[in-house]
Amino acid sequence: MDEKFLKQLLREVKAGQLSESAAFSRLKGLPFADLGHTKVDHHRALRQGAAEVIFAPGKTPAQILAIVRELKKAGSGVLITRVSKEQARAVRKAFPRSHYNPAARTIRLGRSGKKSQSSPRVLILSGGTADQPVVEEARETLLWLGLDPEVIRDVGVAGIHRLLAHQEALDRARVIIVAAGMEGALASVVAGLVDKPVIGVPVAVGYGAGRGGWAALLGMLNSCAAGVTVVNIDNGFGAAFAAMRIIRAGD
Amino acid sequence: MDEKFLKQLLREVKAGQLSESAAFSRLKGLPFADLGHTKVDHHRALRQGAAEVIFAPGKTPAQILAIVRELKKAGSGVLITRVSKEQARAVRKAFPRSHYNPAARTIRLGRSGKKSQSSPRVLILSGGTADQPVVEEARETLLWLGLDPEVIRDVGVAGIHRLLAHQEALDRARVIIVAAGMEGALASVVAGLVDKPVIGVPVAVGYGAGRGGWAALLGMLNSCAAGVTVVNIDNGFGAAFAAMRIIRAGD
Amino acid sequence: MDEKFLKQLLREVKAGQLSESAAFSRLKGLPFADLGHTKVDHHRALRQGAAEVIFAPGKTPAQILAIVRELKKAGSGVLITRVSKEQARAVRKAFPRSHYNPAARTIRLGRSGKKSQSSPRVLILSGGTADQPVVEEARETLLWLGLDPEVIRDVGVAGIHRLLAHQEALDRARVIIVAAGMEGALASVVAGLVDKPVIGVPVAVGYGAGRGGWAALLGMLNSCAAGVTVVNIDNGFGAAFAAMRIIRAGD
Amino acid sequence: MDEKFLKQLLREVKAGQLSESAAFSRLKGLPFADLGHTKVDHHRALRQGAAEVIFAPGKTPAQILAIVRELKKAGSGVLITRVSKEQARAVRKAFPRSHYNPAARTIRLGRSGKKSQSSPRVLILSGGTADQPVVEEARETLLWLGLDPEVIRDVGVAGIHRLLAHQEALDRARVIIVAAGMEGALASVVAGLVDKPVIGVPVAVGYGAGRGGWAALLGMLNSCAAGVTVVNIDNGFGAAFAAMRIIRAGD
Amino acid sequence: MDEKFLKQLLREVKAGQLSESAAFSRLKGLPFADLGHTKVDHHRALRQGAAEVIFAPGKTPAQILAIVRELKKAGSGVLITRVSKEQARAVRKAFPRSHYNPAARTIRLGRSGKKSQSSPRVLILSGGTADQPVVEEARETLLWLGLDPEVIRDVGVAGIHRLLAHQEALDRARVIIVAAGMEGALASVVAGLVDKPVIGVPVAVGYGAGRGGWAALLGMLNSCAAGVTVVNIDNGFGAAFAAMRIIRAGD
Amino acid sequence: MDEKFLKQLLREVKAGQLSESAAFSRLKGLPFADLGHTKVDHHRALRQGAAEVIFAPGKTPAQILAIVRELKKAGSGVLITRVSKEQARAVRKAFPRSHYNPAARTIRLGRSGKKSQSSPRVLILSGGTADQPVVEEARETLLWLGLDPEVIRDVGVAGIHRLLAHQEALDRARVIIVAAGMEGALASVVAGLVDKPVIGVPVAVGYGAGRGGWAALLGMLNSCAAGVTVVNIDNGFGAAFAAMRIIRAGD
Amino acid sequence: MDEKFLKQLLREVKAGQLSESAAFSRLKGLPFADLGHTKVDHHRALRQGAAEVIFAPGKTPAQILAIVRELKKAGSGVLITRVSKEQARAVRKAFPRSHYNPAARTIRLGRSGKKSQSSPRVLILSGGTADQPVVEEARETLLWLGLDPEVIRDVGVAGIHRLLAHQEALDRARVIIVAAGMEGALASVVAGLVDKPVIGVPVAVGYGAGRGGWAALLGMLNSCAAGVTVVNIDNGFGAAFAAMRIIRAGD
Amino acid sequence: MDEKFLKQLLREVKAGQLSESAAFSRLKGLPFADLGHTKVDHHRALRQGAAEVIFAPGKTPAQILAIVRELKKAGSGVLITRVSKEQARAVRKAFPRSHYNPAARTIRLGRSGKKSQSSPRVLILSGGTADQPVVEEARETLLWLGLDPEVIRDVGVAGIHRLLAHQEALDRARVIIVAAGMEGALASVVAGLVDKPVIGVPVAVGYGAGRGGWAALLGMLNSCAAGVTVVNIDNGFGAAFAAMRIIRAGD
Repeated sequence: MDEKFLKQLLREVKAGQLSESAAFSRLKGLPFADLGHTKVDHHRALRQGAAEVIFAPGKTPAQILAIVRELKKAGSGVLITRVSKEQARAVRKAFPRSHYNPAARTIRLGRSGKKSQSSPRVLILSGGTADQPVVEEARETLLWLGLDPEVIRDVGVAGIHRLLAHQEALDRARVIIVAAGMEGALASVVAGLVDKPVIGVPVAVGYGAGRGGWAALLGMLNSCAAGVTVVNIDNGFGAAFAAMRIIRAGD
Repeated sequence: MDEKFLKQLLREVKAGQLSESAAFSRLKGLPFADLGHTKVDHHRALRQGAAEVIFAPGKTPAQILAIVRELKKAGSGVLITRVSKEQARAVRKAFPRSHYNPAARTIRLGRSGKKSQSSPRVLILSGGTADQPVVEEARETLLWLGLDPEVIRDVGVAGIHRLLAHQEALDRARVIIVAAGMEGALASVVAGLVDKPVIGVPVAVGYGAGRGGWAALLGMLNSCAAGVTVVNIDNGFGAAFAAMRIIRAGD
Repeated sequence: MDEKFLKQLLREVKAGQLSESAAFSRLKGLPFADLGHTKVDHHRALRQGAAEVIFAPGKTPAQILAIVRELKKAGSGVLITRVSKEQARAVRKAFPRSHYNPAARTIRLGRSGKKSQSSPRVLILSGGTADQPVVEEARETLLWLGLDPEVIRDVGVAGIHRLLAHQEALDRARVIIVAAGMEGALASVVAGLVDKPVIGVPVAVGYGAGRGGWAALLGMLNSCAAGVTVVNIDNGFGAAFAAMRIIRAGD
Repeated sequence: MDEKFLKQLLREVKAGQLSESAAFSRLKGLPFADLGHTKVDHHRALRQGAAEVIFAPGKTPAQILAIVRELKKAGSGVLITRVSKEQARAVRKAFPRSHYNPAARTIRLGRSGKKSQSSPRVLILSGGTADQPVVEEARETLLWLGLDPEVIRDVGVAGIHRLLAHQEALDRARVIIVAAGMEGALASVVAGLVDKPVIGVPVAVGYGAGRGGWAALLGMLNSCAAGVTVVNIDNGFGAAFAAMRIIRAGD
Repeated sequence: MDEKFLKQLLREVKAGQLSESAAFSRLKGLPFADLGHTKVDHHRALRQGAAEVIFAPGKTPAQILAIVRELKKAGSGVLITRVSKEQARAVRKAFPRSHYNPAARTIRLGRSGKKSQSSPRVLILSGGTADQPVVEEARETLLWLGLDPEVIRDVGVAGIHRLLAHQEALDRARVIIVAAGMEGALASVVAGLVDKPVIGVPVAVGYGAGRGGWAALLGMLNSCAAGVTVVNIDNGFGAAFAAMRIIRAGD
Repeated sequence: MDEKFLKQLLREVKAGQLSESAAFSRLKGLPFADLGHTKVDHHRALRQGAAEVIFAPGKTPAQILAIVRELKKAGSGVLITRVSKEQARAVRKAFPRSHYNPAARTIRLGRSGKKSQSSPRVLILSGGTADQPVVEEARETLLWLGLDPEVIRDVGVAGIHRLLAHQEALDRARVIIVAAGMEGALASVVAGLVDKPVIGVPVAVGYGAGRGGWAALLGMLNSCAAGVTVVNIDNGFGAAFAAMRIIRAGD
Repeated sequence: MDEKFLKQLLREVKAGQLSESAAFSRLKGLPFADLGHTKVDHHRALRQGAAEVIFAPGKTPAQILAIVRELKKAGSGVLITRVSKEQARAVRKAFPRSHYNPAARTIRLGRSGKKSQSSPRVLILSGGTADQPVVEEARETLLWLGLDPEVIRDVGVAGIHRLLAHQEALDRARVIIVAAGMEGALASVVAGLVDKPVIGVPVAVGYGAGRGGWAALLGMLNSCAAGVTVVNIDNGFGAAFAAMRIIRAGD
Repeated sequence: MDEKFLKQLLREVKAGQLSESAAFSRLKGLPFADLGHTKVDHHRALRQGAAEVIFAPGKTPAQILAIVRELKKAGSGVLITRVSKEQARAVRKAFPRSHYNPAARTIRLGRSGKKSQSSPRVLILSGGTADQPVVEEARETLLWLGLDPEVIRDVGVAGIHRLLAHQEALDRARVIIVAAGMEGALASVVAGLVDKPVIGVPVAVGYGAGRGGWAALLGMLNSCAAGVTVVNIDNGFGAAFAAMRIIRAGD
């Protein structure tokens, strides 16, 4: 669209239909001035590799539905995260074919525009059953992004043998997401076993000092295994998105 | 080596030279019991993709030299980080062909064992000149890991046009490391412009609230652009190592 | 009143109706002793540029109504902030012509006493839809203060082009309020584009590290663009009040 | 310069000297691609109202001198902040006419490009003698920006009468900067007395809880007087820059 | 009681009714071993100047009633703090003559055993209406302790004249309790005006940074007026108890 | 089982029934590859001294019941901690002979596999009635672990005589658990009186600064009595488990 | 002086030598406008009970000497706190009869203007020898204020009997200052034993979590003994000043 | 002694040599009043299992020597911790047979009074070479306490096989001390492998977020392996002392 506009303008200048100064003032602000709301969305898919995602908290069901419709009109797949039960009901009533995962608190409609050609594996490891919502959010996001995650649950470091038993899955993976609460040590142990990208997601489980995921966050940031990267506490979506960036970079 | 040992044992059992019970007790603890200090290092190179790195603080020059010699004996390249001037003098005297980068506070001898076949680009962006030591640490680590980083300095968000002018470098890169202090906003802006892995390194510059890199760390963890991952404050080495993991995953 | 009292006293001394020592003891504490509760309110309008504002949390509906009546009796306009639904119902029943904005959680009755002669523009920029309550609180406060704000929503730094497209609005403004959650980077980017006062309002959106607006607050305090000032987290009212102070200073 | 380039290009297209597609690809990235290092500086003066300022910590004397020379070549005035004694010696040796203020830790050469027509007053108030370096940094920055600050020291709230005695200075000012450590209450008290912009600078004096300026920072952010804005701890430069933005907005 | 027991024992030894060794073993552990639950309470009144106070949170109505009965049996007055509506209902049903103050969340039955002979004044100052529950808790505690507090509300530093108008009350007081939220500056200003004990109670009002009373707590601990002492956030009871200790010390 | 498998393999190699390379690949991953989910549980009892414990928060009643059944099938006793009323109802309906302690928020079925031969005493001391849930959790865990705790409540340091009166119980104990909120000083005082292991459990009672148990946690970590160890805030279960480890170590 | 001025003015008005309006404008700002630097100091002694105290950090020896001379000229005693060795040398050279206490880091010249008639006892208790500088600062301040402190060292709660042995000193005291680092429990224990004012001074000794005195500060704020008040970490001066306020209130 | 005194008193009462009231007043405070300074030290050895330990920071060499002499006179062994080089020089000059360990920063003279009969093993595990000072402090303290520690260094979780290779040492130990910095995960992994007491010592190594040992401290407090207890950051002494308490409890 920009291209068409630009070429038309140049043609008009060449043909003498547009004065030099008129063309000048139009050109000056061009790359920005002509961007409407819908265009931005397309740009995001082109720039960042996926359409906009709807973060549900604080939005009314009506607002969510309006954004979903706008994104669908533009041909984009839709992902809604941190959706409440009430919000989910409204979306599913309006879009019965949408996929709602209550554990993940997500709704998917279609997929993100740009789909990965090959099917590289993302492995999601989790320390305990309490990490479930974060694991599910990451899994749903990856499915929406056209990737096919493998999930291994309950391999926390209190029983290190459980993890070591899954060496083959570690070998198979191209990117590993580690969701862990408590002291978050699983990320260090995993990164000590493999030479692949390891993305840590601190999970806000438990109580007392470290409540809110801080112990796991600080633990992962200070991992004694080199090259662990970290996303925000409970941010399964962000970890999945980062995994997608890594997979795309390798294609 | 393990393999040779294992096969020899099996051969001896088959030949009746080793009793069942003797073989059993040797096998029970095998994968661990036979690991001496040098073997561990080889394992690390195999497992994590690079040999052990020497974190200099708290070590005497003599201790550092001993570790360097042990690693060199095993045929491994050596990287020393956070090296003081005094420590550097000792190492350079003993190993005159080592590469010392005072800005990075690193010394390199050779390269890490496993070298990347292709030469994919890692782009290091930095917000200001104060981020220099972190940028240099990341650059030296990447060179040691056999990767070829491109560095663009001083593209902080206070003058957003400076960053936008480097769109081509952003397009060229396969992984982008963003080192930024102050509010660390550069990581968000960059991740909003590309679909590649973006690794944020919060830098501890400045004063007052946020001193010690906390403002940048929290800012990057809360990036409004999806899929930014973060390493510890000032951890240029870790960011480079994570970039290596990503590049390897794509090879 | 004070003036009248003072002149009367001097007249009495001159006329010999008041002894020296009696006048002395009255004068000693004068500027304070004669201030009653109602006078204070008028003083505030004179001193700070606007009447007292009612911060609703912790007050019963009856208490709020009493204060509203007292302020109205004194001829003052009224602004109530952080009003709950229940409190709002009570006020609107008693004062049906009051203006209630549920998104802003404010109620306005009339305007603040002292009105700006000219109509200078305050521009409110916001990073995302979750900043809405803060944006609305700032907007309602500005309307009550006799100023006419322009609002541009959803120009977060994850899509920097969206902001750059509004250069004209940036040019038009005399003061810019930037409400942003997450990493709060919008304040830095905006302050890098203009030479006007930029007031940052960190917004408490999101989860994990930085929950409660701390990432945005620290980010704005450490802005790499010079001369950004900051108000408390979610304090849309304070930002608007500061903008009013700036506008008045220029009149 | 951009303008000349743009008009030349349009002329060439009109004259048929430049093909449509060649012109198109040049135009696409234009506003960014042509920005070299020096140009950025001019842009900053145009955009933000003052040339770049050199933050000295972490820079070698040689690096500082190089930047000073580059800025001077471009006709810009120079301000260096947080300069060490050693750095100051080097700059003063090379530029004997520069103004060094050891209390402020600043060096000035000339003034910032754009000078304020009128001479509006900025008043700097400080709570105690320990706030001196911050007060001086703000004062030097204001002088460099072409403004003429008035400074009143030692009017802390422990002796509230000392402040009240300066009512006239409060009345004279257009913007008030309040530098205060300890509990930082001076900003609240001042903002309760005037209807002008009040910029709080928390100062890191004292010991124990609140060491590092946190008590003052939190105090100013939670000021019970409406419309106080705050800059980072010890950031006298930032407060002065914000004052300049306010003065310019009113011109 | 202890005295009676001791004298009886000594009498029995003297009379030869108790053997030396039997007396010895009883005496050895005496001051501790013979202390039952009720006795402890009497000791507390003797040692600390007031009977035990019931902190209601986490106790069932039945548990509270049991403790009240036990204390009453021992002839002690009773104070219950942080009482919920449900707890209050139960107590008032059982003890209709008890005094319930819903704003203070306290219930009083009688007075603490040891009553102050004279009636020295404790002055409670508060910054705003939101400090009400803390002010009331302090007031009720003082009444229970046999002291007669004077309360002045809404003299926050945003309108410093309101405080200065109450110089006489400041002069009258022997101890001053200052309850203030936000930046807590009132304690500093008051302590700057008087030479009496000033006890600061930080109040957890407001939002954002400083929520939970931290800004006020740090502010009061860093008061620039010498000799302010501080109790825990919202601890009106503790401030009153400290005031009682001071009054008693002067009797 | 492992042993049987290993010996069988060696026998087959000896007998020529298994080729060298086939045996090699089986052996390589052996200690890990053969561990299924149920085996892990037995291993934990062997390794750590007690079967897995079910941390209830975040699990549905159905999930809890499934785990209980699996553990019972394996012959293991079951302990569920932090159980809600709703979860408790479900478990008690399915297992009417289970022991539910609502104050402790625990359910016990049988005992942990490995029972202590002798019956050494664990003494639980608590500072106040608000520590009850933590005390009860520790007590229930100890009962489940086959130990017999003694509990002394309400011996906080505000009335130090109450503690000193229990010298004999201190003498009797082999391990002492101290549960204390507020400033947590009880742990220091107790550790100053005895030469036994003292395990501090900070309790999250109270309000203001220190809310959430931080004052008690920091206090216990900084105990001036040597050799106090600490578990997480409110972690009665962890303290009991640590006591069991100590008792076992001495058997 | 003020009085003289006021009476003179009234006399002139009475005599017709001063017009009503001229007198009015002089009177309007009087209590503030006429306050010079020296007068403020006298006011402080009258208002707060002691002359200004010189906080040495950040002042040059010359600046300190100037202030000392000014205070002495006004007839005031002088107290300098946190004095460095270099500063002390300068002061002692100029004022050989000054009293320098290197442990306290204080210098005294004479006494504060207003001296206590009676000689009530302030008791300073300290937990360990590391609290010495704080204890000495409090002691020197009390001596300067005309009070006569008793000091008992090394009665920390790890050996509770050491404290209990000093019951008589506790009985003798009118105000008790407790300086304690580590967990700061001494304040709670002492306040549990007496009915007098207890002022806690958290001391920044030790290492690890709680470094900087935070454990002691939080511990004292959360004291389970009612009515402990607290000053800032290491603030021996503040505690002494608060004790003086209490003593004066009782006179 | 106390016993003798008591019996003598009773005898005198019986004999009528002492009046009832005189005996009463002596008895009232008895258990405390007769405790002199030296007795306290003996009491500590009896009560806590070891003589007082000298924490060197903040003490002059002369003060340290005085305490050493006093302890030796009482026949006690001496341990000095956190000793500086200068302090060490003074002690070694005065006591040439003392044992100085510069890595541990400790000096030993003899042993603690009460020596363990058997020789139970304490195992000290450490994550990396940077934990050396903490490991050495624990080792020296254990030697002084008459215990015989085994030390295994450099078994951090980044190479989990290194730890697993030491299963036998884990089996041998009766108490395990785990010193680990970074994320402190080693404590969790170890506690998952054994059923013995595991005492975690967080070590303050590294940089950035988690600097000062906080990541390790929070990680260990939130260990997913049950029953880990923790001492303060870098507190090798405390961990050793706690190990001694455990060993003694089992004897």
